[in-house]
Amino acid sequence: MYSFKNDYSEGAHPRILNALIESNFEQDEGYGEDSYSRKAIDLIKQRIGRNNIDIHLFSGGTQTNLTALSAFLRPHEAAIAANTGHILVHETGAIEATGHKIISIEVEDGKLNPSHIKAALDAHTDEHMVKPKLVYISNTTEIGTIYKKDELEQISKFCKENNLILFKDGARLGSALCSAENDLELSDLATLVDAFYIGGTKNGALIGEALVICRDSLKEDFRFHMKQKGALLAKGRLLGIQFLELFRDNLYFDLAMHANKMAGLLRDEISKAGFGFLTHSPSNQIFPILPNSLITELQDKYSFYIWAKVDSDHSAIRLVTSWATKEEAVSAFIMDMKKALKCVDMETEVELYQK
Amino acid sequence: MYSFKNDYSEGAHPRILNALIESNFEQDEGYGEDSYSRKAIDLIKQRIGRNNIDIHLFSGGTQTNLTALSAFLRPHEAAIAANTGHILVHETGAIEATGHKIISIEVEDGKLNPSHIKAALDAHTDEHMVKPKLVYISNTTEIGTIYKKDELEQISKFCKENNLILFKDGARLGSALCSAENDLELSDLATLVDAFYIGGTKNGALIGEALVICRDSLKEDFRFHMKQKGALLAKGRLLGIQFLELFRDNLYFDLAMHANKMAGLLRDEISKAGFGFLTHSPSNQIFPILPNSLITELQDKYSFYIWAKVDSDHSAIRLVTSWATKEEAVSAFIMDMKKALKCVDMETEVELYQK
Amino acid sequence: MYSFKNDYSEGAHPRILNALIESNFEQDEGYGEDSYSRKAIDLIKQRIGRNNIDIHLFSGGTQTNLTALSAFLRPHEAAIAANTGHILVHETGAIEATGHKIISIEVEDGKLNPSHIKAALDAHTDEHMVKPKLVYISNTTEIGTIYKKDELEQISKFCKENNLILFKDGARLGSALCSAENDLELSDLATLVDAFYIGGTKNGALIGEALVICRDSLKEDFRFHMKQKGALLAKGRLLGIQFLELFRDNLYFDLAMHANKMAGLLRDEISKAGFGFLTHSPSNQIFPILPNSLITELQDKYSFYIWAKVDSDHSAIRLVTSWATKEEAVSAFIMDMKKALKCVDMETEVELYQK
Amino acid sequence: MYSFKNDYSEGAHPRILNALIESNFEQDEGYGEDSYSRKAIDLIKQRIGRNNIDIHLFSGGTQTNLTALSAFLRPHEAAIAANTGHILVHETGAIEATGHKIISIEVEDGKLNPSHIKAALDAHTDEHMVKPKLVYISNTTEIGTIYKKDELEQISKFCKENNLILFKDGARLGSALCSAENDLELSDLATLVDAFYIGGTKNGALIGEALVICRDSLKEDFRFHMKQKGALLAKGRLLGIQFLELFRDNLYFDLAMHANKMAGLLRDEISKAGFGFLTHSPSNQIFPILPNSLITELQDKYSFYIWAKVDSDHSAIRLVTSWATKEEAVSAFIMDMKKALKCVDMETEVELYQK
Repeated sequence: MYSFKNDYSEGAHPRILNALIESNFEQDEGYGEDSYSRKAIDLIKQRIGRNNIDIHLFSGGTQTNLTALSAFLRPHEAAIAANTGHILVHETGAIEATGHKIISIEVEDGKLNPSHIKAALDAHTDEHMVKPKLVYISNTTEIGTIYKKDELEQISKFCKENNLILFKDGARLGSALCSAENDLELSDLATLVDAFYIGGTKNGALIGEALVICRDSLKEDFRFHMKQKGALLAKGRLLGIQFLELFRDNLYFDLAMHANKMAGLLRDEISKAGFGFLTHSPSNQIFPILPNSLITELQDKYSFYIWAKVDSDHSAIRLVTSWATKEEAVSAFIMDMKKALKCVDMETEVELYQK
Repeated sequence: MYSFKNDYSEGAHPRILNALIESNFEQDEGYGEDSYSRKAIDLIKQRIGRNNIDIHLFSGGTQTNLTALSAFLRPHEAAIAANTGHILVHETGAIEATGHKIISIEVEDGKLNPSHIKAALDAHTDEHMVKPKLVYISNTTEIGTIYKKDELEQISKFCKENNLILFKDGARLGSALCSAENDLELSDLATLVDAFYIGGTKNGALIGEALVICRDSLKEDFRFHMKQKGALLAKGRLLGIQFLELFRDNLYFDLAMHANKMAGLLRDEISKAGFGFLTHSPSNQIFPILPNSLITELQDKYSFYIWAKVDSDHSAIRLVTSWATKEEAVSAFIMDMKKALKCVDMETEVELYQK
Repeated sequence: MYSFKNDYSEGAHPRILNALIESNFEQDEGYGEDSYSRKAIDLIKQRIGRNNIDIHLFSGGTQTNLTALSAFLRPHEAAIAANTGHILVHETGAIEATGHKIISIEVEDGKLNPSHIKAALDAHTDEHMVKPKLVYISNTTEIGTIYKKDELEQISKFCKENNLILFKDGARLGSALCSAENDLELSDLATLVDAFYIGGTKNGALIGEALVICRDSLKEDFRFHMKQKGALLAKGRLLGIQFLELFRDNLYFDLAMHANKMAGLLRDEISKAGFGFLTHSPSNQIFPILPNSLITELQDKYSFYIWAKVDSDHSAIRLVTSWATKEEAVSAFIMDMKKALKCVDMETEVELYQK
Repeated sequence: MYSFKNDYSEGAHPRILNALIESNFEQDEGYGEDSYSRKAIDLIKQRIGRNNIDIHLFSGGTQTNLTALSAFLRPHEAAIAANTGHILVHETGAIEATGHKIISIEVEDGKLNPSHIKAALDAHTDEHMVKPKLVYISNTTEIGTIYKKDELEQISKFCKENNLILFKDGARLGSALCSAENDLELSDLATLVDAFYIGGTKNGALIGEALVICRDSLKEDFRFHMKQKGALLAKGRLLGIQFLELFRDNLYFDLAMHANKMAGLLRDEISKAGFGFLTHSPSNQIFPILPNSLITELQDKYSFYIWAKVDSDHSAIRLVTSWATKEEAVSAFIMDMKKALKCVDMETEVELYQK
């Protein structure tokens, strides 16, 4: 049984494990003040091309989101997010648990635009309602779509004009930036958003998200918030060593490229086989709409999530690839799909014949 | 410069790194539902000798404390802790940030006893004050002391009689259980306290604390709380693999034994040299009271914390050993101390002579 | 300018002010333990016909909601509410500020039914999402509709079967129970819901909401929660005296009757004039849909909220009546509407003629 | 049985009740935007002698404290308070429930000075601890002592130098400002502290505390915080009308004067009778240390709190006077004390004689 369920089914890229081994007996400072973390942060700053940013290393996405948002917002301020937003759906109310409402915007493609945000602002008129203050977007989104540069520029402009904080969840930022359709650079992000993070866990690390704070007013005392939320690891080096390895050369982007390439192979062949997709996702998550009979067949050998019922005979499934996805597994999946389709067709023909 | 600053200056025990490498490409479930975590939990249950307990794996101590206490307490309920308690002093108000007051009890040796707890209960009489509900103790304590079995039994009895939850912070539980003066078994803990954790980060793991919930009423929906606090790692296997390795045989205890042995060597020699200690700490942290001149001398080659000023000429320092502490480093420290003392003595003699 | 903006534009019913004066110099206990509050609570229990309920007096609705919900829910548990729910829209995130998410259900008439609640439960499947635990309904709803007995029975049954807490916001409970279409008794509520409150502020009191807790497991330590949220008034007698007066005889219901009667007069005449309504509201709030020109005309003499734009020429307004609404003001409004309509008609005729 | 238990045993000053009656049927805006509240705020500003301050009316002290502190502090910031501070002891963890730790300073007289605050700052050195940010003081303190102008100036200077917010709880501010030993003006407060409140509940109002925010950076969006904490009353006029009456002329100060005068009578006579006091309290609370036998005697006719056991034969009691305390009750108490003393003396003599 090969799994396309997610991009965190395996451990870490071997170079990361090697780096852990090589550094293992060096003594260093605790709680993120070690030399590995400092070097990793410097490397990421270089890659972004700016020095006046603060970078903090976290263990996971929910932890990053809840620490950042609770640090950035005053008690009466709320976040705005697409209805698919991870913080809205899949973090067990982590943001609300820190006291903040999230205003949900119904969208089709997982992406916000200025008119969505404006509608949220217009609907919140006085002190009897929360004050919308932070816009939460994800890139890639939770359903695999990506933001184009001009889309992000428009949101950024609107947020600046309306004194809103723009925050980008980058759990799958690698896949977004390496998408064939992407026209954003890492350096653009630091200009366009107030804070974002570079996801490591889903792109080759054991754990690790690098939060980048670009807006000066959001930087103060940030490590206090991390400690308070349990986010400062005693052996913070574990995070530093991993990001150091990922950004020492092009490894971070190479890994994302591989994941996207694997998803692309699946997408192309599924498309050729005549099937459509739930979303336009040029990234490492795809959501093909397949006949239920085919899905059942494929489940014999592959694990993946059934994402949504489309009609009585069809469902969308989610296939996720990662840095660790094996090309032979992808080829085997495609082969098995084709085999199954032949079968299905034959059965259908038989059925038709009998009628 | 060799560091005795803490027990998290190095990486992980090599067997743990090997286990990570060996398992690296196996696909498994996310968020702590992987086979490694399940096996590790089973092993720990066997070691404790009970099956009707729940075990959850966390990344760090502050995260464990804040998740557990906020899950266990209702909004008006408070924790009671010794004034040295980690949650009171060194967690940036993490517990208060989840809404709960901590009642501080002034003690000398870092340990609570029933009369302390009773005093706290007696001082909280009605709904104008918080309701003390949970007793937080640490073993070893933050100043290296340990609880004896009868001490813990008395607290446990008092807590049961007064319907209090007894919670034990076990960030350094290994050192406590392997102390020469210890008479507690891991199995005793599951009987005497309602929840405790087995610290991995300070005893050979990269990260990892295993929370054991013994009281049934505290178990329900606990994973929801973990997720809400950002404590469920996508690659939860990272925690599982480590605890699996630590508890597959006696490794966890062997490592703690080593740390204690190294501290013992330091303690004995410092004692022989005629110095006293701030606390009676038969564990991996010792707090010798040394002349400031000697401290300065030692700081040339060793790093450690100056813990407290004792008088104008003397301070207590903290020396911490770990699974990774090298015996040659300990020997060198002792040697250097002796050398310095000779020096110091000579200077003192000179001074005396000059007077 | 006469105001139909809300039901809290005036002070209190004169009998309440008299009761304050008569009791003014009697010394009594503080923080709700006074004899007035105790008697008021006894009277309400009698009226409800049950003794095994706990009653607590609050200053206002938001305070009641936030204290009750935060006392009733554990950190990972969420409330379910209609999208019109007061806690969702008009309490500045008060519930989220205590840590809890509110799941919004899109409805037309402000009312929830079991299928709505079931959909929310079905959408929350595991620990990566909040756990829906409390159903929040309002009667009257925020848009003037009311729950019929069988509707409430169905919800109640569903909640019991699914171990959900059913909470009813009763800021306008008087108007609901005195509606011509109502078939619920106060005693039914205590059987069908787990907690509800009897709104005083909008029905003759200066301030005051009486929270009734029916389910035993929700009662424990409730006064601690009140104190913690700032809800225990030093002169709690202020609340006790008012509820004592409202429930000493039928005053509470007489006042609600009057409010409903005044709204009924408006509704009938507006209806006769040929206009429709945004909602079917047999209570003290009505939402007629009027031509914008007529609205402008009426705004010369009356203040009220424009609730929603209906089309380019029509808007829904909100007219609210109360215990203090004067019948002559209602008559005058109706008269002025009729006059204006004649005008409007004439103008329209002229316009038509000119075309 | 006459009560000296507290200063909230009666209702309101009759002029306040009259004002409620006179205004009762006037229609006005809700939620504190009514004309009474606006006028009351203007009057208080005039009395303070400054216009660049914001004033908000609350129902009670705990509500004021929790709303202000949670609005003023970021999540990692803590308050510093004397160990007697109301927020530390008697508010059921209300501040912690909003997420903030309170650092307790052990003092004898209920008052903080710069060296106390400095010690707290010095003990909090890095991000592993909370960041002390707000200094909470009470005037009068919870044990009846008052701050002199130079004491407050020193604290104010220290807070400004250290970028700390100085907050003064004024639940009994009237009594403080009308103390024979006071040298502070209301106008001084607005210069020396960043925010304070003028307590109405304990000085003639039914409910009501007027929070004055002097520092500009603390003013923004404050009404959002009030609404979120349930502090905006629908009939906010109830607060406005009362403060309007209290500050229309000198009523607020006349009432405090009376309370202080009554306490003074008690203090003088108790002192003359040869008894000492637990604290030096030139305000409306006194804490005489009396023989237990005398206390028992007095409890037949008077209710008051036994505050502290002093030795095996003596206890301190708390006697509180208010605007409503009757001079004849005070005289009667004094008379009864004298009578009892004679009795006690006789018994003592008998006892002595028998020995």
